[in-house]
Amino acid sequence: MGSIWGRLALLGGVLCSTLAHADEGMWPIHHVPRAEWQKQYNFAPSDDWLLNQQRAAVRVSDGGSGVLVSDDGLLLTNHHVARGQLHKLSTASRDLLREGFYAPTQQDELRCPDLEIRILWTYQDVTARVVAAIDGKAPPEKQTAQRKQIIAAIEKESHQQSGLRSDVVALHSGGQYMLYRYKTYQDVRLVFAPEEQAATFGGDFDNFTYPRYALDFALLRVYEDGHPIRPEHFLRMSDKAPAAKDLVVAVGHPASTQRGLTVAQRQYHRDVLNPLQLGIHQKRIAALNAYMAQGNEQARRGSTQLRSLENTLKRLSGQQEGLRNTTQLLQLQKEEEALRAEVRKRPELLQKFGDAWFKLQALYAKLGPISKRSAYVTVAPSKLLTMALHLVRHPEELKKPSGERLEEFRESRLPALQRELLSSAPVYADLEEAILTDWFTQISAALGSGDPFVQTLLGGQTPQTVAHKLATESRLTEQEERRALLEGGADKLAASTDPLIVLARKLDSQLRKVREEYEQQVISVEHIAGAQIAQARFAVYGSGIYPDATYTLRLSAGEIKGYMKDTRPVPHQTLFYGLLERALSQGEQPPFDLPPRLRLGLYRLPLWTPLNFVYTADTIGGNSGSPVVDRDGKVVGLNFDSNIEKLPNRYYYVPDAAGGRAVAVHSVAILAALRTLYDAAPLADKLVGNHSLQ
Amino acid sequence: MGSIWGRLALLGGVLCSTLAHADEGMWPIHHVPRAEWQKQYNFAPSDDWLLNQQRAAVRVSDGGSGVLVSDDGLLLTNHHVARGQLHKLSTASRDLLREGFYAPTQQDELRCPDLEIRILWTYQDVTARVVAAIDGKAPPEKQTAQRKQIIAAIEKESHQQSGLRSDVVALHSGGQYMLYRYKTYQDVRLVFAPEEQAATFGGDFDNFTYPRYALDFALLRVYEDGHPIRPEHFLRMSDKAPAAKDLVVAVGHPASTQRGLTVAQRQYHRDVLNPLQLGIHQKRIAALNAYMAQGNEQARRGSTQLRSLENTLKRLSGQQEGLRNTTQLLQLQKEEEALRAEVRKRPELLQKFGDAWFKLQALYAKLGPISKRSAYVTVAPSKLLTMALHLVRHPEELKKPSGERLEEFRESRLPALQRELLSSAPVYADLEEAILTDWFTQISAALGSGDPFVQTLLGGQTPQTVAHKLATESRLTEQEERRALLEGGADKLAASTDPLIVLARKLDSQLRKVREEYEQQVISVEHIAGAQIAQARFAVYGSGIYPDATYTLRLSAGEIKGYMKDTRPVPHQTLFYGLLERALSQGEQPPFDLPPRLRLGLYRLPLWTPLNFVYTADTIGGNSGSPVVDRDGKVVGLNFDSNIEKLPNRYYYVPDAAGGRAVAVHSVAILAALRTLYDAAPLADKLVGNHSLQ
Repeated sequence: MGSIWGRLALLGGVLCSTLAHADEGMWPIHHVPRAEWQKQYNFAPSDDWLLNQQRAAVRVSDGGSGVLVSDDGLLLTNHHVARGQLHKLSTASRDLLREGFYAPTQQDELRCPDLEIRILWTYQDVTARVVAAIDGKAPPEKQTAQRKQIIAAIEKESHQQSGLRSDVVALHSGGQYMLYRYKTYQDVRLVFAPEEQAATFGGDFDNFTYPRYALDFALLRVYEDGHPIRPEHFLRMSDKAPAAKDLVVAVGHPASTQRGLTVAQRQYHRDVLNPLQLGIHQKRIAALNAYMAQGNEQARRGSTQLRSLENTLKRLSGQQEGLRNTTQLLQLQKEEEALRAEVRKRPELLQKFGDAWFKLQALYAKLGPISKRSAYVTVAPSKLLTMALHLVRHPEELKKPSGERLEEFRESRLPALQRELLSSAPVYADLEEAILTDWFTQISAALGSGDPFVQTLLGGQTPQTVAHKLATESRLTEQEERRALLEGGADKLAASTDPLIVLARKLDSQLRKVREEYEQQVISVEHIAGAQIAQARFAVYGSGIYPDATYTLRLSAGEIKGYMKDTRPVPHQTLFYGLLERALSQGEQPPFDLPPRLRLGLYRLPLWTPLNFVYTADTIGGNSGSPVVDRDGKVVGLNFDSNIEKLPNRYYYVPDAAGGRAVAVHSVAILAALRTLYDAAPLADKLVGNHSLQ
Repeated sequence: MGSIWGRLALLGGVLCSTLAHADEGMWPIHHVPRAEWQKQYNFAPSDDWLLNQQRAAVRVSDGGSGVLVSDDGLLLTNHHVARGQLHKLSTASRDLLREGFYAPTQQDELRCPDLEIRILWTYQDVTARVVAAIDGKAPPEKQTAQRKQIIAAIEKESHQQSGLRSDVVALHSGGQYMLYRYKTYQDVRLVFAPEEQAATFGGDFDNFTYPRYALDFALLRVYEDGHPIRPEHFLRMSDKAPAAKDLVVAVGHPASTQRGLTVAQRQYHRDVLNPLQLGIHQKRIAALNAYMAQGNEQARRGSTQLRSLENTLKRLSGQQEGLRNTTQLLQLQKEEEALRAEVRKRPELLQKFGDAWFKLQALYAKLGPISKRSAYVTVAPSKLLTMALHLVRHPEELKKPSGERLEEFRESRLPALQRELLSSAPVYADLEEAILTDWFTQISAALGSGDPFVQTLLGGQTPQTVAHKLATESRLTEQEERRALLEGGADKLAASTDPLIVLARKLDSQLRKVREEYEQQVISVEHIAGAQIAQARFAVYGSGIYPDATYTLRLSAGEIKGYMKDTRPVPHQTLFYGLLERALSQGEQPPFDLPPRLRLGLYRLPLWTPLNFVYTADTIGGNSGSPVVDRDGKVVGLNFDSNIEKLPNRYYYVPDAAGGRAVAVHSVAILAALRTLYDAAPLADKLVGNHSLQ
């Protein structure tokens, strides 16, 4: 993983007194490097401190993190994490994104259509049990099946014993298996959200950049059995801004890093995988923009997808920059060669792990065409077709034992999938039509109209014709129709003449085949070779390495710190002065306009109040909504972004000196905004634990 | 020159309706492209408009521009143009740079020790007369001598007839010769200057960057015979900020561009000349920093030189960026080849101009060693040694006819040189010692201690020893000593035992030889070949081309306009809000600290007042202090910088789309600062012509 602790071991302790990359690492809660933090920051968190963080910092099912911040279930997360629910709760006449929202009483709170909160309650190392169940000499696809079965068995057993959602997670590319047990909550209600314009001030221009001036936060409340939960573990918001050089820890759920990739894998990402995705995204954005240009309501409907696509596009570009960094690649090549040289020196390692790199090299040499097919042959672009396929497969998959099902139908995941199918969130047929049209157009162009999958999709008709028919004639846009199909079972589904169900039935076997082939030919090989390399790394450098991010709870330490950009120092924080400067100097032209509450309210606010800050901790997508806490475990900020300089960190740690930074909203900015801009002082009081004022 | 008008001709008028680079060109007052401005901006300045600009926009001898802004001789320029005089007027106990200055009455004004203001009064094309006096078939050095003689003769005759300073200037590399007659004023007094920290907020970090937050202005007053002048031509300051997209014209004295250089010349600048200068400057800055680290007073004494060196270093780096731009170089190569192809097609051109490019190529192939010697063998680094050399040469040069003298002793230039020698400005011996030590050290290392020039300088002793002796034993630091030597003539100078005079006597002949060789072997060839290429360009593309900048009056038109930097739009203007944001977010750490008057006064100011703005006009060093005027000829801004993106424009026009911008202080910022921050409302009233309030 390129961890500094690993590298230190490699260098025989030469650098022990000067940790070059003290801030590297997204550490699992069960593997926090206390000794190193103690040395570097004079901070060794206690068991109590860690347990409190573990159970306060939650995972939010819409793809982010959050934190419990009161004894009555208030949950703080980013506006952009809550955005999907805000969008689903909005209609043409009540646009929560444009207007913001505040529920002064619990009766006013709005239930999110399909949001789940997960709290990591307990964990257990199950590596030995998983490894024992796999025959290392069997062919890859056999090993994969064995692995899936044992994991499903452990998850099922754990769920039966504890009643908790139980996930077995592979860390270190399968070098370690952890059983994570989660308390989950599905009744989550909206308490407060600023206008989206305040939360995302500067729009896509300012996304992944800094200095920033964004109030990217929202408050939800977690309910159970119709009442707000009364959590034992929650964090207080600090009413004092942290200073430059202060230690902070981001506690959240980073989604995915790939720092263990070999040089061959990186080159494959750079030359094949990322360009493919970039191309698809660029075209989809163009199509979506054309749809949204039709009117205000279309613009509103498409906004969530557009934002997400633009975000992904910018992120991919930043990652590509990193992969194109020759110095970095040469450095990684050196590290890889050093590890392989060590492996060659020890016969026992050479025999066990020596061929892993060759296997990967051989795999990637032939992977181009498979990757291209796999990138286009998917129903993911269409929300409706995805649901249709889930419905069609539901009775079929449920017949099998959990360990043999498609991943998303495994016992541990099934409830989430069913909730999604029955969500009350609106689905817009015209938006679906636009997306389907683009997908059909792209896949025809990429694979050719004679391709069997394309034939099944279009049957010789134009993308426009087929998409129009599917979107206008299907009734899957209606929640009750989906419920009827889900509850009706195999017979009702087989009899359905809904055009999307008909299409899903036709696509099912082809999609299964593509997926199976990819899993057998690619994923299995990657998994086994990856695990071998990870084990080789353990053997050579010791176990003081952090695993890649896997959307599980991690702690990342760093300090609040500005950086140099070209010739100019970028300060560690911005102030509300800067928000006014940026809005007014841009003539308040969108996306630099101020929503009315800011236009009026900012002048009542002490403008020197800190607004956003940057810090050096190792974070990535999924960390959105992570609390940024101080030594006392208080929330001093809410993580919401990274700057462009940091984006290559999917593939390698971007050191402090390269200017990579995580970006957070100051807690004092959140409190000031609630009090002065949004007349929500009682909420602010609650967050700092100031009960006397309530 | 790569002018758009030239290129349009080349393209046969294809682009006539869409001027790609409408803002290109620093146009002489006698060659303003009215028709093109009319087409592009719907603005064709009248003769009156132009005459008023010509006589209001002055050249400031310290290396910049300025503008008369009242009927009683008030002159507005940049603080950094007036800085040298402010420094000279300061002492250890009265630091005008730290404290700023305001003279509420004329009695309080301080006379600048050695500043001259020049107003271009009339002009005349003398090309025919110059060309007629040169024998085009004579060897280069002979032609050079003939040119010098005729120029000196024209200047002398004009001075005798008009009483005005008369300069013959070669435009278009000698394709055109203009006689410029200037009214000059030597009695210039300081009226107002903000604290340097307010004028250069952000220091070297922010120099050549944008967004900027600088009050870079100062007010002087021009006197004649002990009374303020009452100019007929002056400009009013606008009390209304211009808007984005407004047309503006910068009227000033850009010092030097080299856009007519051939590809070979550019490569020589990139590979030899600029790296040499960069290296020398970097080392000198290090030496100066070491000197300034000794104490506050040393820091004050060295500050002017440091600022100037840092500025040059950053400028050189930006220029190098431009020369390293491969796309640009290929484009220029193409243009050069196209011109040469045209020349080859026409026998009469081929015969006259065809070998110019070959001459230059041959010249640069052998120029490396000469350039290196010439970069080090100079007395320029030392102010005292420069004065010693001027003193030693003074009687000798004055014996010759003006046309045969060294350039700086020509009749038209002599008064300025004499004023400099007799300046009352303090010279700091310890600073001189530090600079001499560095120069001696660098030249020994570069040329070797056995080099004859180094031998003459050091005579085998260490740089430290020699510099210490010169700086401590010479009496040239005293104004009266220099006056005595200047007035004492050849005998007194020959008898002087002042160590600097002794050294200057020894160096004189060697320096003359280096200079003579360089002039004969390099300058003459460059001049003749350059003129040939310029004439070829005239012949092929017509005469609608602007000449390189030559520190003479030019008008540059453009619009006020932001630009994209990476993914973010940079606004066309900044506000006082941003000044507070930048100062406070940096914790008011130098160079982002606010001087006391700003700390207290900013809160009384409407913070949405515009502060600085950017515009697309073609400007360069020397344009500092240029008025930026609107269609009415009113001053809406004061030019003070360019951004980094624009720095390659010494070598080629940096188009709008590349983000190159000139940076100016808003006139409304100057007025607001005078009124609210500096209690100088009467000055502000005077500048907008508001007499009733005086």
